[in-house]
Amino acid sequence: MTRTWTNWSVCLTLTAAMATAGEGKWTPQQVLQLDPLQLRKEGLQLPVSRLWDQKRGTGLLAAAVNIGGCSAGFVSATGLILTNHHCLFGILQEHSRPGRDLITDGFLAKSLEEELPGRTTRVSVPRKFTDVTKEIEAAVPAGAGDLARNAAIEGKQKVLVSECEKTPGARCKVAVFDGGLQYVLIDSFELSDIRLVYAPPRAIGEYGGEIDNWMWPRHTGDFAMARAYKDGKPYKPEFYFPLSTTGVKTGDFVMVLGYPGRTVRSLTAAEMAVQRDQWFRLRAEVYGEWLNLLETTTKGSEEGTIAVAATQKSLANVSKNAQGQLAGLKRGGIIEKQAKSEDAVEAWIGTHSQYAKAAEAKQELDRMAVEKRKTGNRDFLFNAIQISPLALKFAANLVRLAEERTKPDMERDPDYMEREWTRLRATMERDQKSFYRPADQALFASLVAHAMKLGPQERIEAFDKIFGDGKVDETLGFLYGRTKVLDLKERMKMFNESTEELKARKDPLLGLAFALEPELRAWRTKTHTLDGAVARLRPEWRKAVIAHAGKPVAPDANSTLRVSFAHVKGYAPRDGVIYTPQTTLAGMLEKETGEEPFKLPEKAMAAAAKVDAAKVPLDFLADADTTGGNSGSPTVNGRGELVGLNFDRVWENVANDFGYNPDVARNVNVDIRFFLWLLKDVDHADGILKELGVASK
Amino acid sequence: MTRTWTNWSVCLTLTAAMATAGEGKWTPQQVLQLDPLQLRKEGLQLPVSRLWDQKRGTGLLAAAVNIGGCSAGFVSATGLILTNHHCLFGILQEHSRPGRDLITDGFLAKSLEEELPGRTTRVSVPRKFTDVTKEIEAAVPAGAGDLARNAAIEGKQKVLVSECEKTPGARCKVAVFDGGLQYVLIDSFELSDIRLVYAPPRAIGEYGGEIDNWMWPRHTGDFAMARAYKDGKPYKPEFYFPLSTTGVKTGDFVMVLGYPGRTVRSLTAAEMAVQRDQWFRLRAEVYGEWLNLLETTTKGSEEGTIAVAATQKSLANVSKNAQGQLAGLKRGGIIEKQAKSEDAVEAWIGTHSQYAKAAEAKQELDRMAVEKRKTGNRDFLFNAIQISPLALKFAANLVRLAEERTKPDMERDPDYMEREWTRLRATMERDQKSFYRPADQALFASLVAHAMKLGPQERIEAFDKIFGDGKVDETLGFLYGRTKVLDLKERMKMFNESTEELKARKDPLLGLAFALEPELRAWRTKTHTLDGAVARLRPEWRKAVIAHAGKPVAPDANSTLRVSFAHVKGYAPRDGVIYTPQTTLAGMLEKETGEEPFKLPEKAMAAAAKVDAAKVPLDFLADADTTGGNSGSPTVNGRGELVGLNFDRVWENVANDFGYNPDVARNVNVDIRFFLWLLKDVDHADGILKELGVASK
Repeated sequence: MTRTWTNWSVCLTLTAAMATAGEGKWTPQQVLQLDPLQLRKEGLQLPVSRLWDQKRGTGLLAAAVNIGGCSAGFVSATGLILTNHHCLFGILQEHSRPGRDLITDGFLAKSLEEELPGRTTRVSVPRKFTDVTKEIEAAVPAGAGDLARNAAIEGKQKVLVSECEKTPGARCKVAVFDGGLQYVLIDSFELSDIRLVYAPPRAIGEYGGEIDNWMWPRHTGDFAMARAYKDGKPYKPEFYFPLSTTGVKTGDFVMVLGYPGRTVRSLTAAEMAVQRDQWFRLRAEVYGEWLNLLETTTKGSEEGTIAVAATQKSLANVSKNAQGQLAGLKRGGIIEKQAKSEDAVEAWIGTHSQYAKAAEAKQELDRMAVEKRKTGNRDFLFNAIQISPLALKFAANLVRLAEERTKPDMERDPDYMEREWTRLRATMERDQKSFYRPADQALFASLVAHAMKLGPQERIEAFDKIFGDGKVDETLGFLYGRTKVLDLKERMKMFNESTEELKARKDPLLGLAFALEPELRAWRTKTHTLDGAVARLRPEWRKAVIAHAGKPVAPDANSTLRVSFAHVKGYAPRDGVIYTPQTTLAGMLEKETGEEPFKLPEKAMAAAAKVDAAKVPLDFLADADTTGGNSGSPTVNGRGELVGLNFDRVWENVANDFGYNPDVARNVNVDIRFFLWLLKDVDHADGILKELGVASK
Repeated sequence: MTRTWTNWSVCLTLTAAMATAGEGKWTPQQVLQLDPLQLRKEGLQLPVSRLWDQKRGTGLLAAAVNIGGCSAGFVSATGLILTNHHCLFGILQEHSRPGRDLITDGFLAKSLEEELPGRTTRVSVPRKFTDVTKEIEAAVPAGAGDLARNAAIEGKQKVLVSECEKTPGARCKVAVFDGGLQYVLIDSFELSDIRLVYAPPRAIGEYGGEIDNWMWPRHTGDFAMARAYKDGKPYKPEFYFPLSTTGVKTGDFVMVLGYPGRTVRSLTAAEMAVQRDQWFRLRAEVYGEWLNLLETTTKGSEEGTIAVAATQKSLANVSKNAQGQLAGLKRGGIIEKQAKSEDAVEAWIGTHSQYAKAAEAKQELDRMAVEKRKTGNRDFLFNAIQISPLALKFAANLVRLAEERTKPDMERDPDYMEREWTRLRATMERDQKSFYRPADQALFASLVAHAMKLGPQERIEAFDKIFGDGKVDETLGFLYGRTKVLDLKERMKMFNESTEELKARKDPLLGLAFALEPELRAWRTKTHTLDGAVARLRPEWRKAVIAHAGKPVAPDANSTLRVSFAHVKGYAPRDGVIYTPQTTLAGMLEKETGEEPFKLPEKAMAAAAKVDAAKVPLDFLADADTTGGNSGSPTVNGRGELVGLNFDRVWENVANDFGYNPDVARNVNVDIRFFLWLLKDVDHADGILKELGVASK
């Protein structure tokens, strides 16, 4: 490709830096509290009331929906939904079989009849937000200790959800904002008939694979399209985002809507430091070690390689993320900045005595953080069991489930309530595919090795008892050799067994899980007590922080509907380098090597050869405030037209979960114009283009 | 480091792209043929006559001198010379000993007395250029065949050089331009008393090491300073470049002066394709294989690792370069562009019959290229012997030297003339340090394996005879076990022995070299014949190319003094990325990991902590036309002040040896302001700063 100096002209507009958009994942209700004139100046052309109607509790923002943990957007009055390719991957898997490889080839339904239903795909559309903070707080008995407080809050949430879900089709939840500052009951209705309409070949939808993951410049066509049905007919959403055909240019205003999962910006600096040290450092270290073990123990074994592939991918993602968090925290000085702004709030409290309790609350949170460090390594290992080794995960979950089952449903841990059993059973069944004994046993040995190195305050007694003699490999060999837990059929039988029945089996691995359970239970109790304390303290502190700010402050992400106002913008990742905000098909061709993950399908290569590839936009950057859960988020322009879909953040921005660093806070979007080019030039999907209202003249 | 939007402002000036500078390594004489108004428009503020006085045959350009294959510049009236750190590395090595590690610590002479003489360092200053084309051509007998033509040309060159060197202190050579279009006798005088004045610690001079080699953004302080003496007193050069203290900014005009080694732009497209396929592809492949062998055969052996380090570095550099050439040729479509411009010249010849012979010459060159392909793989292996395996290199060179010694000196191959013996002997002695038998034998086995795969037209008979039985390892074991060539003392004795004496030794490795010599001789004869043909054909063709251009065309680099006119400029290495042209100390600190090659000395870290590192310029890019040999080239502004030193090209620009691609043609310079910062803030070298006329006020 020949580059000319005209490329540089992008720079000219970049210097026109934007004012105040960027930071903040705003709730729909908060959007109404923002300065409408400022939003207009930023580039919002719709009246704010179009985005959200407080009275009705809905608006254009509700065209952004949740699809199995991802975000998505309605794009037509006929129920068409756009989201990321990786968010609809399950439907492609479901309908692929030898001779019909939809994953590799992609899919295009030529008529409604050809659309492919996804057995487990669900879309949830929010329809009512009710502030239940008062109800929740009232449920806590006067003088309750922290554990009791936590139980009362959890209990009240269950009651509210259960009442809400009495309406047929309703799927409800109580969302907690900033550790208890606000509780909102969200009533959504669920669409369960979702059918795949279009997906590009995996080589386009995942172009660049793990190599480009978290990276910029990016050239991934990460989208797919489905249609929601209701009562067998295409669903007619009240709100949807028509597709833009003109796209965006540098400096343009965009909104990114969706369901960001979890951020930790409301933590105190001391709490953040604990997260960094006891969480991300350990993740990078232990999971890095596990990745090596998976590789060495499966080398040369096709069976092993296939089995551990999913675990490997997940660990790689988590440990790369952890490294990014660590690097970003350091680079952005995020914790130091948080500490500085806390100092300012504390100084301000000195002259605003009505917030004196906030300062105390903050000190208590900080003390708890210090306390947490004492068992941080052990707590990390306890958490890790939910990932690997599978042998221990299976056994621990079976023991736990049997125990929870003895309680009334409403008193169970929410994850073990009856409504979750189908999911639990499916996971326990599916995980069998990921089991490969040499690898699993190596991870178990690593877990034990880490446990053996724990300090005196955080010993795991169940481990000390059976591995304390140092003969770890022999003991593990015995456990893996004798247990029936690793036999799928036996395990699924165990799924329904009571504690007594499980004990009667005298299975040595279950025996270890039973020995471990009291320690896990004590750890959970401690966690619940801490949660109760946080529910008491964090709201106090945050009230002062917000009062000090004197303007709306967006709460931490909690998987509820949010919108981020942003602009198309590049950034400087390091000295001497500028990343421009737009990539093109030409860059995709530049990366083409003929080998995965940079191997394009022939039909795409042929179509690309017929156009000026430098003029086909592919991905773009904006400074939207996003996190995990924003996958598939509709990115819309100031007129509410869809210009792209969010699908990633850049590497330098991974640590924005802790704080927004405007220098590097960039989300990665796939450009709707690439989608349109694919549909038109590569797949000749004239019918759909017509339905989307963008058929070529 | 916090980056702000002000960084982007660099972009603004970048769009003011410059007109015609860039391509062309101009000879001093050509500078006078260029449009002086255009040069002024580009940014040259001096009159052209200051750069070069045709009558005197000298000028400011001659302040750029040759220092052992590198370029350098006089920077004071007191003989101070600036060049790259890696160009004066030898003096640092020479004066380092246990307890005085100048390589690691760097060096600063506090007085003239402390300066460190370099035993073998020589500076050569050009003083007269004489066009001897007519003399050379007249020396070729009428009707001479190509081999005789080559011999006549070589013979005449030797005579001219020998006459020229009768003047004491003169060092002369005949430079061949574009394969014989022009021959110039260059009379230089040699300064042989060169003393080291200043060198930064290696950690600064080589910051980034192999990782950053050929790369941008770069943060290397690749410079060192020496002083030339004559008759025991500081030499007073007529011309020198005073240091600029204001440095450069994006868009500024600069000139890069020096002694670029070799480019191949005057080849025809067909010849270029042969170079690509028979040269760079094989380099990338075979040397890549050798690098692996060096690693595996020395694993765990400290002795082996140290021995092969230099070979490894050289092979890594050459094979990385080869990969860059291949990638750049493809990316820039350079050979295709050459073919297109040849088509244009050939069409033009159709209407300019006086150049009819040029078209024929070009066709013959192309036919010769086709012919070359037939033995391309074998020729590559013959050339490779001059690198490795050392066992074969030693033996072949001994046999060759003994043979050449029987001729009168003036009839010898120039590389084996008496004036080269000191160098030859030193190399043969020094190479012993690089010898490690397991590694060397593995490379030999690889060489044999490649030889065994050659086609029927290019068999190496000497190899077929002794390795044809397939027992390569046994045979090599025998050769390495029995030969005395690998014994340093014995080998240095052999250096002085005659063919008969060598034969009488009945050394099996010498035996192989003797068996190989007739084949090597035939190959050399063929090469000389081809050279004779090129001397006959290339000038014809190039005359037409130049006439068609209708303006001065810079000849290929040939280690003679050249100047390139350029501007400070970034570039877009790939879709979505812009490299800005200036890096800073802040970027150096960003890269700091505490581990080599990104580990800064403490005194530099301490000094850096006291300044705004983003305001200390470090390296910069320009679009100067450079190649190997330009290391240490003074980079001067339009007023003739030194603003930096060239030390590298960027990766995307490696293939500019074949053709200048303005999109990516960027050379890498170290910024004189970094040098000044080091001298002032880190090393407090006030005396030198004063001598350089840049002492702080």
